[in-house]
Amino acid sequence: MSHVVAQLQEALGASVSLDADALEATREDRSGWRSATPPLAVVHAGSVEEVRRVMRIAHANGTPVVPRGAGTGLAGGAIASPGAIVLDLSRMNRILEISEADELAVVEPGVVNGDLNDALAPLGLWFAPDPASRAIASVGGNIATNAGGLLCAKYGVTREAVLGVAVVLADGRLIRLGHRTVKGVTGYDLTALFTGSEGTLGIIVEATVRVRPITAGVPVTVAAAFADVTAAAAACAAVTADRIRPAILELMDAGVVARVAAFLGDEALAGTPLEQVLPGETFLIAQTDDAGATSEAARIAELFAEAGGRVTLSTDEATGERLLDLRRAMHPALAASGQVLIEDVAVPRSKLPEMFRAIDEIAARHGVEIPTIAHAGDGNLHPNFVFTGDEVPAHIWQAADEMFRAAVALGGTLTGEHGVGVLKRRWLAEELGDDVFELQRGIKAVFDPTGILNPGVMFEASVVAAR
Amino acid sequence: MSHVVAQLQEALGASVSLDADALEATREDRSGWRSATPPLAVVHAGSVEEVRRVMRIAHANGTPVVPRGAGTGLAGGAIASPGAIVLDLSRMNRILEISEADELAVVEPGVVNGDLNDALAPLGLWFAPDPASRAIASVGGNIATNAGGLLCAKYGVTREAVLGVAVVLADGRLIRLGHRTVKGVTGYDLTALFTGSEGTLGIIVEATVRVRPITAGVPVTVAAAFADVTAAAAACAAVTADRIRPAILELMDAGVVARVAAFLGDEALAGTPLEQVLPGETFLIAQTDDAGATSEAARIAELFAEAGGRVTLSTDEATGERLLDLRRAMHPALAASGQVLIEDVAVPRSKLPEMFRAIDEIAARHGVEIPTIAHAGDGNLHPNFVFTGDEVPAHIWQAADEMFRAAVALGGTLTGEHGVGVLKRRWLAEELGDDVFELQRGIKAVFDPTGILNPGVMFEASVVAAR
Repeated sequence: MSHVVAQLQEALGASVSLDADALEATREDRSGWRSATPPLAVVHAGSVEEVRRVMRIAHANGTPVVPRGAGTGLAGGAIASPGAIVLDLSRMNRILEISEADELAVVEPGVVNGDLNDALAPLGLWFAPDPASRAIASVGGNIATNAGGLLCAKYGVTREAVLGVAVVLADGRLIRLGHRTVKGVTGYDLTALFTGSEGTLGIIVEATVRVRPITAGVPVTVAAAFADVTAAAAACAAVTADRIRPAILELMDAGVVARVAAFLGDEALAGTPLEQVLPGETFLIAQTDDAGATSEAARIAELFAEAGGRVTLSTDEATGERLLDLRRAMHPALAASGQVLIEDVAVPRSKLPEMFRAIDEIAARHGVEIPTIAHAGDGNLHPNFVFTGDEVPAHIWQAADEMFRAAVALGGTLTGEHGVGVLKRRWLAEELGDDVFELQRGIKAVFDPTGILNPGVMFEASVVAAR
Repeated sequence: MSHVVAQLQEALGASVSLDADALEATREDRSGWRSATPPLAVVHAGSVEEVRRVMRIAHANGTPVVPRGAGTGLAGGAIASPGAIVLDLSRMNRILEISEADELAVVEPGVVNGDLNDALAPLGLWFAPDPASRAIASVGGNIATNAGGLLCAKYGVTREAVLGVAVVLADGRLIRLGHRTVKGVTGYDLTALFTGSEGTLGIIVEATVRVRPITAGVPVTVAAAFADVTAAAAACAAVTADRIRPAILELMDAGVVARVAAFLGDEALAGTPLEQVLPGETFLIAQTDDAGATSEAARIAELFAEAGGRVTLSTDEATGERLLDLRRAMHPALAASGQVLIEDVAVPRSKLPEMFRAIDEIAARHGVEIPTIAHAGDGNLHPNFVFTGDEVPAHIWQAADEMFRAAVALGGTLTGEHGVGVLKRRWLAEELGDDVFELQRGIKAVFDPTGILNPGVMFEASVVAAR
C-alpha cells in the first residue's frame, strides 16, 4: 500500500475506501468516458475538516485529487485519473440553512438539486438551475460545471444563482468567497470564477445559493410537429422576434423523436402530442409561465402554426410535465440505442438553421447518425454521435471535430453547459486562442501551483485513455 | 516633455492632449475624490488600434495607465494617478451592432447607457443595467464596476448582461473573451472576471451585451410614508415574505427626504406623494412591472398599509417616473448641501433594520449627519457622510470605518455596486482576509505583471492624496 494511502487511512479512517467496486465506480461518469485505471483511493468525505485533511496530505505528497459529486457529468470532468485520490463529496449532502427573508440557501456540495427543491417547495421557493438531470445531479456539480439546462434563456445559468462558496484550496486552507447579498463588488468576482472551474481551482465545500419565489400560476405548454428542422428553427426565431421569452423552448429532431418513441413504447406515448409526430418530423415544446403565461402561449401557438406546425396547447400542468418527461427521456433513450458521444455546442440563436445544416452535412459525410436535441431558446445543441464498440472510432472523432469547428465558425462555442472535462480539452486552446489559453493557465497556477487539482481536466496533457 | 509623451504624440497625434483643463478634468470623478496631481497626458482614444498603441508605449516604458470612461464613478476608480497616462475611452462611443434575433448589442465602451437604450427602445428592446446615472454613465464603466442600481433584485447586476468583451492587455495584445451565446463554459469565465475589475486587468474596448424585450404593460408605482426607518424596513420584509419581487424597492430616510425636498423646492414636489411626507418620516417607493404588475402592486399597497404606511398607488407611467426622479435627485441634492463621502455597503435584506440602527448609533457617536438611501430590494445602502471643508475629516473616516465594520459583521460587504477604487481600498484586505487578498493579487499579476494598469485602484499602496 502506498505511503499516501496509509496517511489517508490514518487521518480519515473509515472515510477512505479501497474497495475494488468503489474504486471502479469512479472511473466513469454519464459521458461514456472511462479512465485508464482506477484511482489510488476514494475518500467519502463527511465534513469540511475531512476535505482539508485530504488536501493537506495530497499537497504534502504531490498526489493528484479528483473532486467528485454525484458522478452525473457529461464531459469526463470528475473521473479517476491515474495515481489520483478521488474525493467524493456526495456524503456532504446537508442543507445547512434556508433563509426565506434573504431568499438564499446554504448547502453542502453533495445536496442533490431535486432534494434542495423538495425542501424549498413547501416554502414557496425554488432553486432555478435545472439541468435535465435535477433528480440525480448535485448542486456542487451544478456549480463546478456552471450547469445550464432547460430554463436558462429566461432564468439564467447556474452562475446567476450562486452568491458565494467556501473552498478548500490545494494546500488545505479554507477560504470563503462572495456574499449573502445580491450585490457585492469587493475585489474580483472569484465566486463567478469558481463557477464552471470543474474542480481545477479548489474544492467547493459549501455554497450559498439564491432561491426565488416559485413562479405564480400554472405553466402552459405548446407542442408542435414540423416537417423539418429548418421550419422548426424558423418557428423559434418567430417567437424571439415577437419579443416573447418562453421559460422553455426545446427542439427534438427526427432522430431523437424516433429513439425516444422506440424507447418509451406506444403506451407511454398514448395521448401525447408525440404520438402524432410523423417519421422525419421535428418536434418543438414551448412552455410559458408567470402571470402572462396564457396570452404568451396563445401567441406562440399562432406563431408555430404560421410556421407550418401542427400545434397542441395544454393548459394543465400534468400534460406539460408529461411532455417534458418525453424530452428528459432523450439520454436514456440514446444510451439504450448504442454508445453515444454527446456534443454540447452553442451558437447564437439566429444561427440554429445553419448549425442544423452543418450537422446534416457532417452526418452525411461520415455516414453517421447524429440525433440532435436543442435548447432552442438559447442556441445550445446536443448532437449525439451514435456508434458501436467500446472505443470512439476515428471517424466519429473526425465528425465531432468538424462539428466543433462549425459551431465556432458560426460565432458559437465548444460547450454550452457540460464543461470541457477530458472529453473536449483537445479543442480548448483552439477555441480560446493561445493568448487566452495562457491566461487561463496562469489563473490555474495561482490557485494550484503544483498542479494536483483534477489534472487532465480542461488543460493538461492526456493521461486518461479513450474509452 | 517626457520621453513617453513624445512617443504618444508621435504614435497618436491629435488624440493626445496636454491641455491643462483636460488634464485637470481627469483628477476627479463623482465621488468627490481628487488625485494629488494631474496625469502626464490624456489620450482620447478613437479606436482599438489607438488603445493598443497607448498600451505598447506604456508597457515599453513602465508607465501607469488609468482607463476612464464618462468619469461618473463614485469610488475614485478612474482618476489620474501621478505619472500616469489617462486613457479616455469616451470617444469610442459607437453602437457597432444590434441583433434582434440574438437579443444582443455590440458596443464600444464609451457608449452612454441611456444612448444605448434610446437606440434599443424603438425595437422593443432594453439593456437592463440601470445605475441611477444611466443618462451620463458609459456601458464600459458599468462593466468595469459591475454596476448595480435600482433593478438588480429582479433583473440582475451588470455581470448578468455581459456576454463577452474584447480587451487590450497591458502589453497591447488584443484578446476576445466570452461568446454571442447565452450559454458557454469553455474554460474559466474571464468575462465575469473582467466585469467589476475596475480597469486593473486590461482595457475593455468592446462589449457584447444581452438585451431583453421591454417588459410588457405599464408599471405600477406604490409610495408610502412611514414613521421611521424600522417600520419601512419591516414593510420591505413583508413584501419579500409574501414572495413578491418588485422591480424597484427604494427607501429614502428622513435625512434624504429633507435634502431632496429642499433641493427640488415646493413646486417640483407639488402633487407628488413626497409633498405629504412629514419631517422625520421615511419614504418608500416600490414599482412592479410585467403582466402581474397590477395585482402585485395592490398587494404591496396592502402590506405597506399593514406596516403603518400612508400609501399612494399610481397606475400611470408619468407619475411613476416623477417619483423615481425624486429618488434620482438624491445625488445632486446631497452635493448641493455640502461635501459628501458616499458609502455603499450591502447587507442581507433581513439585516436592514439592524444596519439602520448601526447607522444611527454611528451618527450619534460622531456627531455627523448620515442621510441614507437604500435599494431595499437587495439590501444595498448608501449612507452619505456630510461634512465641510476640502478634506475628509478624521472623524468622518472613523465613522465610515465603523460603518464598514458594522456591515461586514452583519454578513454584508464594503461595496455593493460602486467598486473599491481608491476610496475603499483601505478596507479591502480586511473584508477579504489575507488568503483571498493574496489570490486576488495573484490574478492581477497574471494579467498585469508589471503593475501598470490603474495602480492604486483596489490594491496598491496609496499614491493618491486624500481630497
